[in-house]
Amino acid sequence: MTDFTRHRSNTPPPVQRKVSDSTIRRLSHYLRSLETRTGPGPVTVSSEDLALEAGTTAAQVRKDLSLFGSFGKRGTGYGVSDLTFHLRGILGLDRVWRVALLGAGRIGSALFEYTDFRRRGFEIVAVFDRDPAKIGTPWGAVTIQDVAGMEAVLARQAIRVAILAVPAAAAQDLAERAVAAGVRGILNFAPAPLRLPEAVVVQEVDVVTELESLSFQLTHPDRNGAG
Amino acid sequence: MTDFTRHRSNTPPPVQRKVSDSTIRRLSHYLRSLETRTGPGPVTVSSEDLALEAGTTAAQVRKDLSLFGSFGKRGTGYGVSDLTFHLRGILGLDRVWRVALLGAGRIGSALFEYTDFRRRGFEIVAVFDRDPAKIGTPWGAVTIQDVAGMEAVLARQAIRVAILAVPAAAAQDLAERAVAAGVRGILNFAPAPLRLPEAVVVQEVDVVTELESLSFQLTHPDRNGAG
Repeated sequence: MTDFTRHRSNTPPPVQRKVSDSTIRRLSHYLRSLETRTGPGPVTVSSEDLALEAGTTAAQVRKDLSLFGSFGKRGTGYGVSDLTFHLRGILGLDRVWRVALLGAGRIGSALFEYTDFRRRGFEIVAVFDRDPAKIGTPWGAVTIQDVAGMEAVLARQAIRVAILAVPAAAAQDLAERAVAAGVRGILNFAPAPLRLPEAVVVQEVDVVTELESLSFQLTHPDRNGAG
Repeated sequence: MTDFTRHRSNTPPPVQRKVSDSTIRRLSHYLRSLETRTGPGPVTVSSEDLALEAGTTAAQVRKDLSLFGSFGKRGTGYGVSDLTFHLRGILGLDRVWRVALLGAGRIGSALFEYTDFRRRGFEIVAVFDRDPAKIGTPWGAVTIQDVAGMEAVLARQAIRVAILAVPAAAAQDLAERAVAAGVRGILNFAPAPLRLPEAVVVQEVDVVTELESLSFQLTHPDRNGAG
């Protein structure tokens, strides 16, 4: 806690430096650690505590946070509710993203019932499938719609985020259609890498690749060279 | 295809260089691309074709494969079945990993029915939960067992890989117990970073972090600096 020489302020830092994926991941982990501290308990937390729970070092915590301003006080640490508020803002979780779920199969269904989406500001407001047996079925407050008419719905509801939960063979075409209809961010559960314009943000949740990476590392314990 | 100066050989490359996570991911994508080519069709594939389908460059394909030997022929490309065979070996998919599934909740259930595990050489041979209502329930060929007795089962069946599908609060303790009982690789679906000995391989499939990363990038379109 000895490197906080500036006072905390709500003004953004002057230099808008680039932020790496690994930094974003750690910010997400810090927030998760803070969120376990709501309710009774200490009102401050140290870099060391955050580091321990996020699996990193105190110096890394301070460096990551310094990218976004001056938080915390020398010798006191960070205010839990204060830092939670700021991290939620930094991660863009202080708004609600309206999301289309593409694919109402097993994975789509599990995702639809995944309560953390709503808690993290992602609200599924439309579900699409091509299976006539599913089209028209109500899921909670939404009704599964025919993917053939997807573009019109995306445009009408100004949906900018899509969750792709379809077989690999359908993924690229559907993603291109979604992007043409205004989608700017895709969470891709289809086991297929997508080729899309650079301006589109794609996060892959690729169980097969994670499995194969695990298999590689178990097979070659001495050859994995990057975290 | 102009940089294949060596002849293809089945001997391993002399230098066992370190392999980055991103290389492993691309190898996994190349394999997926090859696997769509089984059946009728050309028997060879070029670096350019593989690159296009994996979202990378032909030079990167050649560089990645050169880490593991000399494959392909100048002007002809790679034999599809040949390269598939070698990639499966490189990724360690030519054996079956016996896997324990820790957690028989919604995510555990979806994973258990996920046919790609078996296809990729991961066979779930034991399922554990702490819920008395679930213990004793048959799932396919296995029966859900009390997690209290997990260590004895892991040891008796010589299980080295675990899939962690439990709430965040239970993840660390359960992971430590599994490692103490001989587990060397963990596929972690719990939204919690694990602190484990370095020799243990952990792959995280963290939907919350992917969501927050997506949110960050949508919120700060100019600040994402690493793929």
